Amino acid sequence: MSEKSSPESHSDQISTQRLEAFSDGVFAIAITLLILEVKIPNHEDLNQSHGLKNFLLQLWPSYFAYVFSFIIIGIYWANHHYLFHMFKRTNHVFNMLNVLFLMCIAFLPYPTAILGDFISDPELRPTAVSLYALGILLPSMTWLILWLYGSYHYRLIDSRLDKSFVKMMTRQYYLSNVFYLLALVISFFNPIASICINILLTLLYLFPPKRPQYKKNEE
Amino acid sequence: MSEKSSPESHSDQISTQRLEAFSDGVFAIAITLLILEVKIPNHEDLNQSHGLKNFLLQLWPSYFAYVFSFIIIGIYWANHHYLFHMFKRTNHVFNMLNVLFLMCIAFLPYPTAILGDFISDPELRPTAVSLYALGILLPSMTWLILWLYGSYHYRLIDSRLDKSFVKMMTRQYYLSNVFYLLALVISFFNPIASICINILLTLLYLFPPKRPQYKKNEE
Amino acid sequence: MSEKSSPESHSDQISTQRLEAFSDGVFAIAITLLILEVKIPNHEDLNQSHGLKNFLLQLWPSYFAYVFSFIIIGIYWANHHYLFHMFKRTNHVFNMLNVLFLMCIAFLPYPTAILGDFISDPELRPTAVSLYALGILLPSMTWLILWLYGSYHYRLIDSRLDKSFVKMMTRQYYLSNVFYLLALVISFFNPIASICINILLTLLYLFPPKRPQYKKNEE
Amino acid sequence: MSEKSSPESHSDQISTQRLEAFSDGVFAIAITLLILEVKIPNHEDLNQSHGLKNFLLQLWPSYFAYVFSFIIIGIYWANHHYLFHMFKRTNHVFNMLNVLFLMCIAFLPYPTAILGDFISDPELRPTAVSLYALGILLPSMTWLILWLYGSYHYRLIDSRLDKSFVKMMTRQYYLSNVFYLLALVISFFNPIASICINILLTLLYLFPPKRPQYKKNEE
Repeated sequence: MSEKSSPESHSDQISTQRLEAFSDGVFAIAITLLILEVKIPNHEDLNQSHGLKNFLLQLWPSYFAYVFSFIIIGIYWANHHYLFHMFKRTNHVFNMLNVLFLMCIAFLPYPTAILGDFISDPELRPTAVSLYALGILLPSMTWLILWLYGSYHYRLIDSRLDKSFVKMMTRQYYLSNVFYLLALVISFFNPIASICINILLTLLYLFPPKRPQYKKNEE
Repeated sequence: MSEKSSPESHSDQISTQRLEAFSDGVFAIAITLLILEVKIPNHEDLNQSHGLKNFLLQLWPSYFAYVFSFIIIGIYWANHHYLFHMFKRTNHVFNMLNVLFLMCIAFLPYPTAILGDFISDPELRPTAVSLYALGILLPSMTWLILWLYGSYHYRLIDSRLDKSFVKMMTRQYYLSNVFYLLALVISFFNPIASICINILLTLLYLFPPKRPQYKKNEE
Repeated sequence: MSEKSSPESHSDQISTQRLEAFSDGVFAIAITLLILEVKIPNHEDLNQSHGLKNFLLQLWPSYFAYVFSFIIIGIYWANHHYLFHMFKRTNHVFNMLNVLFLMCIAFLPYPTAILGDFISDPELRPTAVSLYALGILLPSMTWLILWLYGSYHYRLIDSRLDKSFVKMMTRQYYLSNVFYLLALVISFFNPIASICINILLTLLYLFPPKRPQYKKNEE
Repeated sequence: MSEKSSPESHSDQISTQRLEAFSDGVFAIAITLLILEVKIPNHEDLNQSHGLKNFLLQLWPSYFAYVFSFIIIGIYWANHHYLFHMFKRTNHVFNMLNVLFLMCIAFLPYPTAILGDFISDPELRPTAVSLYALGILLPSMTWLILWLYGSYHYRLIDSRLDKSFVKMMTRQYYLSNVFYLLALVISFFNPIASICINILLTLLYLFPPKRPQYKKNEE
């Protein structure tokens, strides 16, 4: 019986499909739940802000938080999808690490709501921004763990990938974590600067990721 | 090694699948979240409206907003699906533009809730309708951007598509934007007229879209 | 060029896949949102019901509504899936009718919440039950429309299906509507009887549906 | 006509796909909804806990409940996916039993919210922990039913699976239920001990499941 048609190899192939489908589901839900955190006013809220128009205009921090978190989750979705082109199989540990990563993605609506509600209040701003910076750091950290586990000695990634390309990816993911950690530390002293660093880092990720490079002898 | 079986071309094909699956997820969630915006009464609400029956009857603007937004998202889903028959591949920029489009779709439950809550109050109606008109215009605008980027010099669309058909589509999407923008402008002066234009435009989209036309020499 | 490999026929096949995926998404979300309608107590609620244990026990109507609606949506999912074995293609009108059907499925969490909140109050019970009976009737009616449109002169269903089997299905779906309508009418006079009829009808649907029968000469 | 291409066998194959897709949808939604149960403070809450930082720190039971429930649902997802490698087909009864199982998974956000809100209050803790222990027991029980139904006389599972492997699985699922039931009983006397048992059991499930073993003569 060939390796290809054995029950085990067949099941491994399905694995990756369901892992991606499940992850896409969590991405899609987390990204769509963000809107639930934008407050719908009751009549008391309208009185306090002197009308619906003023209320909606004063809500700009929530719109900003919505747009920013949407873009971050969208970029992670695109990168997840980009990363999985390089993965040829999965295993139980990787599935569990992916659940850990998704736990951090699904957490993002919470700091987003806090940021939207309290960034305009100077007293509460530092804590709100720190929580948000932590909320961005967590998926970045678990993402690095996913990559380190999967790429270690070509455990799960395509064996045709070029060694220097794999190293470059590892360096890049480490670097991102350093910057996100920096943004978290800075948030305790200067919340606005922390937000700016996070926006800048996110803008960098809008650029297309480098094309995977394969070993010469394979082509 | 042929182009077909190279790692790169393989990954491009998966791309489109996950792009569609992710988009379908966001469509399905945004459309299903709409019901969460229809208010569930507490005992105080029931006292104010003299019973459950009256409360439910007075809720008609929320039902209207639910049905209208459901149909709009449903039409976008059908059109997304129709459009992607013509797309043969995707790239990072297009993925990001699609995220931008989905951001506008996922935003729709918010203006829907505002419309349902305040359209029956003559003082708040203009703002509620303007926000809703904006909420409809945004996906239409980002949709146009998606199309322009993908169809520009046949960048991502099927090269067998007829040139005049592509032009016709472009014209139609520009026209929709003009009308939705008109509805937004009118909403500042006459909210009811604005809603009527939006309903009319939506009814037009219930008609089947034109069948894609392919170049003669391909068949 | 053969019919099989023409762009049009290819796109039709994708259609059905995305229709099913989108519908599954809406089913999965509507069914999972039901739990959000079960009330989480605050400290005031706990004081009123003398402790958490009592509060949870008094919540039985919400558990009942949760279980009942979950089973109903689950059955519709299974039947949608059963029905689509018989469908060979889709078109724009059918896609839109399916959106109409999904609109009724996605509405179900609302009457479920109302039923859970007010069925134990004798004064509000009739309205709550009537709304729920209507909430069950609506998907049944749009389901019938879906079937009538798709099966009319074998428009979308498998041409190999036996004529008498198609007739039998039509009869069954009409009959269901008659009973659900009856349950709605009865709800105005006797809410408990209405609920019992609905439970009975639902229990009937737990039985496996009849296997599709195909024309003799095809096998 | 061969068995392979008959309409019936074709439809059975699709069945399993949609069953898995639907289940993945419910898993993904239930797991992502958990974050909605973590409370977003209003200004009154902030006054009571003397600032946002204190409020967020006092929220640790909600974070704990979020992480714990996320891991539990994640493990069930991985196990569902592992189990379905061994299933070759499905039927109406199994679909309905799977809906029953999903009903218990989708219920989990409710006891999670109760646990997060009340575990830190010594008076309410016993009830909150008992409800949570019940919330964990229910999916475990319905999971056992799924397995017993599907594996009975190799009804739905792969006929190549080794008999002793099937028996081992049955034993393991029975044993899990005994322990989860024990945790529920203990929760009435010692809530902290009950939580510890549940955490321990969950940690055990983080280990990779045993590889399916196939009959010798098949390979």
